[in-house]
Amino acid sequence: MQIRAASEADWPSIWPFLREIVRAGETYTYERDLSEEDARSMWMLPSPGRTVVAVEEDGTVLGTAKMNPNHMGGASHIASASFMVDAAHGGRGTGRALGEHVIDWAREQGYRAIQFNAVVETNSRAVALWQSLGFEIMTTLPEGFRHPTQGFVGLHIMYRRL
Amino acid sequence: MQIRAASEADWPSIWPFLREIVRAGETYTYERDLSEEDARSMWMLPSPGRTVVAVEEDGTVLGTAKMNPNHMGGASHIASASFMVDAAHGGRGTGRALGEHVIDWAREQGYRAIQFNAVVETNSRAVALWQSLGFEIMTTLPEGFRHPTQGFVGLHIMYRRL
Repeated sequence: MQIRAASEADWPSIWPFLREIVRAGETYTYERDLSEEDARSMWMLPSPGRTVVAVEEDGTVLGTAKMNPNHMGGASHIASASFMVDAAHGGRGTGRALGEHVIDWAREQGYRAIQFNAVVETNSRAVALWQSLGFEIMTTLPEGFRHPTQGFVGLHIMYRRL
Repeated sequence: MQIRAASEADWPSIWPFLREIVRAGETYTYERDLSEEDARSMWMLPSPGRTVVAVEEDGTVLGTAKMNPNHMGGASHIASASFMVDAAHGGRGTGRALGEHVIDWAREQGYRAIQFNAVVETNSRAVALWQSLGFEIMTTLPEGFRHPTQGFVGLHIMYRRL
């Protein structure tokens, strides 16, 4: 698996699984009926943001991450990031590889911390993965997320100093 | 004091004290050299956001607040808000009146909570005001804000259920 900068040519490979994850509405605070155009501009970030893909040797896109400043001005040393992994290619450590990439990128860029603003508490695999990469649950907003089948659940804010 | 929807005609009254607060860089995570054009589009929100001014009987603008969804999709029931009060007219309860207005507005709009994403911990008057209005400090991001004279200080995330 290789992680490299995403280009516009990767979008047709990203959109099908990103759409599936967004449509499910279980793990991200995006509108479930997000259009392809809005999804592309939300995900394919210009500098100082960055979007990457994790690809197999044969070029198959396994997952993607975007990373960007979380705040402006006096808090611009805190980065943010989001991750999408194709369920058809799960269980290969793609999420972990993307997470490690983001941590390295943020450190190289001079960020002092990474903050995840909205990690749905029922997304327990993601929560455990981020914890294993050094992220802490700083707080959980009670009933912060309306899950399509589980009703109102907590929304974690996770943070890792670099 | 009256609180009413802000119109474009109010902007010339808002910009001088908003600029002063942003330039000081002590309380908000905006770029300190924010241009007037960027400030206007950031502050004067279209629906579903809302921007209000607190005005004296003679029409003097004392302060302003903007309110908007904090998240999208499954967390769109959480509102956010920001406040600016003209230091030349401080001590009149303008911040409190604006805060109460925002709470009423958010409740009427069907939000279930209000989340402040970035309250600088050294902004102790604001922290105390929000606490008196029922907001809790959910967590403090360590060294989350670079204060121009006090160095790295904490950044509170505050929350109030409605």
